[in-house]
Amino acid sequence: MPVINVKMTKEDGGATLKQKEELAKGITELFSKIFNRSSSNAVVLIEEINTDNYYIGGESITKLRKKK
Amino acid sequence: MPVINVKMTKEDGGATLKQKEELAKGITELFSKIFNRSSSNAVVLIEEINTDNYYIGGESITKLRKKK
Amino acid sequence: MPVINVKMTKEDGGATLKQKEELAKGITELFSKIFNRSSSNAVVLIEEINTDNYYIGGESITKLRKKK
Amino acid sequence: MPVINVKMTKEDGGATLKQKEELAKGITELFSKIFNRSSSNAVVLIEEINTDNYYIGGESITKLRKKK
Amino acid sequence: MPVINVKMTKEDGGATLKQKEELAKGITELFSKIFNRSSSNAVVLIEEINTDNYYIGGESITKLRKKK
Amino acid sequence: MPVINVKMTKEDGGATLKQKEELAKGITELFSKIFNRSSSNAVVLIEEINTDNYYIGGESITKLRKKK
Repeated sequence: MPVINVKMTKEDGGATLKQKEELAKGITELFSKIFNRSSSNAVVLIEEINTDNYYIGGESITKLRKKK
Repeated sequence: MPVINVKMTKEDGGATLKQKEELAKGITELFSKIFNRSSSNAVVLIEEINTDNYYIGGESITKLRKKK
Repeated sequence: MPVINVKMTKEDGGATLKQKEELAKGITELFSKIFNRSSSNAVVLIEEINTDNYYIGGESITKLRKKK
Repeated sequence: MPVINVKMTKEDGGATLKQKEELAKGITELFSKIFNRSSSNAVVLIEEINTDNYYIGGESITKLRKKK
Repeated sequence: MPVINVKMTKEDGGATLKQKEELAKGITELFSKIFNRSSSNAVVLIEEINTDNYYIGGESITKLRKKK
Repeated sequence: MPVINVKMTKEDGGATLKQKEELAKGITELFSKIFNRSSSNAVVLIEEINTDNYYIGGESITKLRKKK
């Protein structure tokens, strides 16, 4: 408890292992602290999605990044 | 608002960028029109799944395609 | 094929059946047209989420609606 | 960016609004800090699941809670 | 390991606790047997969806049930 | 009906097609038997996740496997 699914874009070669570990550990501890529950069974899944497959307001992240 | 997740099989080399853009834009506009809400924050995620990993009625799409 | 999951906030009493039918039918037809595939097995799932449980940029939709 | 989905059990009357806000804000800030990306479009969805519908190792949380 | 999410329609008053336990236990054991892995951390989540919110081929389960 | 999503780690070269077929077929039959419903429209999706992206209690499966 709980199951947390993170869907993020794969950019600049993708998240490093260190970043993913920090994220998973950080979310797990945050959850545990806020709800005062054991987090030994907390599951965090990280899915990296191609920027061509992630759209906000109908536009791909690929295009939105170029606009900046 | 909203988050829309599309899980489709990867066939014939996969969806083209043009097809994915059409799909994401089309869904976003459809949502906006039906619910009369801004779609600037609408998220559409497209995930392509190997036909060996997608099953209908217990049979893989790989096998179902061969039957046709 | 495919499976499409729509997560939207429940506002103003929630989406009507007519709106949900329009959305599901519209997405199904859009997919079928773009990819030129049969949509007889297309699954659309609509999940309505309380505005207290939907956050953009760390703020709930409940609060974001009040700001407007 | 990103979309983060939290599925947690509904216990003791459910999470309070304050707890959910803390969780969503905390995860959003954590993500932003680790990946050094803007989090203005980050989406966090919180789904609370009945303990009869959440199983670990084949046993419901309802039963696991009673064992403790 | 793994996380298994079951989305089913809520019909005839919904699944009973006994049915849900059988399903979660059965899936967990099946997974464990096929992959020869421990299932002590396997998570099964069951979500029941209103038949007005579940569509196949663009038609709601509500309507499809009436046609039979 | 239903949609069942299996997220499992990719280990030892990944699940074989035979294992995935067994899993999808087994889950489909189990569902059909327990709920006494047709499973011709049941969808099973299998997603294999890198062990660096799957965390339990804040630790990656990669690390947990090494500890054993």
